Amino acid sequence: MVKYQGPELDRTFAALADPTRRALLMQLESGEGRSVSELARPFAISLPAVMKHLDVLSDAGLVSRIKTGRTVTCRIEAGPMEEAMQWLVRYQKFWEASLDRLAALVEESGE
Amino acid sequence: MVKYQGPELDRTFAALADPTRRALLMQLESGEGRSVSELARPFAISLPAVMKHLDVLSDAGLVSRIKTGRTVTCRIEAGPMEEAMQWLVRYQKFWEASLDRLAALVEESGE
Repeated sequence: MVKYQGPELDRTFAALADPTRRALLMQLESGEGRSVSELARPFAISLPAVMKHLDVLSDAGLVSRIKTGRTVTCRIEAGPMEEAMQWLVRYQKFWEASLDRLAALVEESGE
Repeated sequence: MVKYQGPELDRTFAALADPTRRALLMQLESGEGRSVSELARPFAISLPAVMKHLDVLSDAGLVSRIKTGRTVTCRIEAGPMEEAMQWLVRYQKFWEASLDRLAALVEESGE
């Protein structure tokens, strides 16, 4: 079941609305776990600021965190993104239609 | 060119993070234009509140508005959603992998 109006979608889209959070997810896109300090390295912002972003991603269910000793390992959880994508897919016809129009124009100009 | 870190993506995802705004876009998904009062009808919130949501959608480039006399007609502009979807597509492998695992399990249990 795809939920179009659930608070899950609100949280997912809100979590994705920030460039630092998107960059954190992009660092995790291989599927491998990464420590918080590894994830924080490329950013010019402080470690606590990165951790706040990770909290938002974790609350949205987009990242899981496992603590082993003093190391917290983060992993991507892509499930909520699937729901977001299924919401967006219904609008695909609009850009597909514009691609079709473009293809028709290119074809005409070649005749 | 897909921009992964642009402010456009921030605005698109932020605009989509609200259930009223998603419901407004869903009302426009046929591609037909609708007046603001038509759009506002299904909602329990005030007309000015609906108009504020339309402002956010318009600022994100997701809705265009044309004024004819006293009527404002809104139309969906799906371009920014295509960018959002292209951003999400890179994570598709995660849920496809889980579907593959599920299919393998079903197959095994049938043997």
